[in-house]
Amino acid sequence: MCVIELAMPTVTRPYRAQLASSVISSARASGYRVNVVAYQDDYGLSANDYLETRRGACDGMLLYLVGGDEVNPNAFRQPFPIVCLGLCPTSGMVDQVLADNVADGRNIADLVIRKGSRRLALIGPQGVFDGRAVDPAVRSRGWDRVRGVLEACREHDVTLDPRLIGVTTSGWTIGTGYRAMMRVADSGVDFDGVICLDDPLAIGAMFALRELGRSIPDDVQVVGFDNVYDAAHMVPPLTTVDANLEWITGAAVDLLARGIHDPVGEPLCFQRESPILLRRSTR
Amino acid sequence: MCVIELAMPTVTRPYRAQLASSVISSARASGYRVNVVAYQDDYGLSANDYLETRRGACDGMLLYLVGGDEVNPNAFRQPFPIVCLGLCPTSGMVDQVLADNVADGRNIADLVIRKGSRRLALIGPQGVFDGRAVDPAVRSRGWDRVRGVLEACREHDVTLDPRLIGVTTSGWTIGTGYRAMMRVADSGVDFDGVICLDDPLAIGAMFALRELGRSIPDDVQVVGFDNVYDAAHMVPPLTTVDANLEWITGAAVDLLARGIHDPVGEPLCFQRESPILLRRSTR
Repeated sequence: MCVIELAMPTVTRPYRAQLASSVISSARASGYRVNVVAYQDDYGLSANDYLETRRGACDGMLLYLVGGDEVNPNAFRQPFPIVCLGLCPTSGMVDQVLADNVADGRNIADLVIRKGSRRLALIGPQGVFDGRAVDPAVRSRGWDRVRGVLEACREHDVTLDPRLIGVTTSGWTIGTGYRAMMRVADSGVDFDGVICLDDPLAIGAMFALRELGRSIPDDVQVVGFDNVYDAAHMVPPLTTVDANLEWITGAAVDLLARGIHDPVGEPLCFQRESPILLRRSTR
Repeated sequence: MCVIELAMPTVTRPYRAQLASSVISSARASGYRVNVVAYQDDYGLSANDYLETRRGACDGMLLYLVGGDEVNPNAFRQPFPIVCLGLCPTSGMVDQVLADNVADGRNIADLVIRKGSRRLALIGPQGVFDGRAVDPAVRSRGWDRVRGVLEACREHDVTLDPRLIGVTTSGWTIGTGYRAMMRVADSGVDFDGVICLDDPLAIGAMFALRELGRSIPDDVQVVGFDNVYDAAHMVPPLTTVDANLEWITGAAVDLLARGIHDPVGEPLCFQRESPILLRRSTR
């Protein structure tokens, strides 16, 4: 039986664990087994250096990269096919499957606005952001989501007040979401909707709002991204953009199968919008 | 190179993802590679049925079982060695490594009491529990932790008021922790310490206490178990019992190496207390 290697920097964050789980299911449906390697935790290597160690070691590889993990184009030249998962530079050399984070950001912001919120807070930008435009040179899951939010705002003639931008200088956690939401509320500027760039941020923000006596969703709607395990169990359950892992990993395994059996095809990139999971944190 | 298979029901919960990550690191330090299989997600099989499919398929297996997943003793008879992780019935046929959840419960409760809390709330028992004794026939991570808490209470002559027991009928999540803490507070019975049976419960409980205007740790101390990723980033950071994964997985890989190279040894069981991570949710 063919073995697929899933290489990730680490599997310790919920999203990546869910991703691994979904890869396993998808691969099984196609008759493959999966070898999960955490190249950073495991070997202390960058993706680039790790790829150099893997020549000839598996039948195909699903490679999940994180922002800033640059891969030398030569490292993609392997005797086995590679499919990259997520937003990462492939130099056009290998297949890629990713969510359309810009569309996802646009869709969730559109939902919140259509359901009556026009004074939006935005929790999660990591770095300076004035609420108007994102540096086009910077691509990441977070900034692409912001791009989408800005598109929806423009369509609906909604302005993001810079005092309602909750910048998170450290990583995205429940605690940073809580603190950023509290800082935004401290500004005294009125808001009636909160878009958080991932679910742990949204969980922290929801608890900040509860502590402030704001009712969700009647007074303030809250949304997140990724549908982490706790999202559905929140008080109230959190409306969020699904991570769409079933589609992502299914498409990736299909592409890998193509690469294993027909290694001459041109590299493909599959990208798709993710469904919104409507729960009770929105109206 | 030898390949170790890590078989788990699913990797989607943070604890299991961290466990997998730590197994990978430990195995690497011993010169092994790891194949992670989620037997429930992946094959829709019980551990027992999954073992039947694996005869001769790997050099050794780390088997993580969950409560209620009974393994037929015959299924442990494999041409490769097996080491069980966690609290599971091995029928004395294979090696086992596990945390000492009773000692861990006793130690964290002892800490909270020594630091001045005597009216303790307990969040997380899954099922009827009157605050006095646990059915000796029932073994699980949660109930063993409760046993330890009760031991510390007896040593310090502290009584658990049944109205301060926050039973969680559904799974342990942030939301169930929040709701259970709110129900306990609604009882009107005074409390000055909260012991939660895992960290997501503690995160929910902390936010409930903040909403109620209780100050942590001056007014109420809060503790959890497992040191999930968000624990260190909470407001305030959460004191918790470490999952001790480095020791658990290191010992398990050592036992597996013994089993691969010397398959005649008597089964061993290694069990050890876990360190407490002192953070600012306690005094």
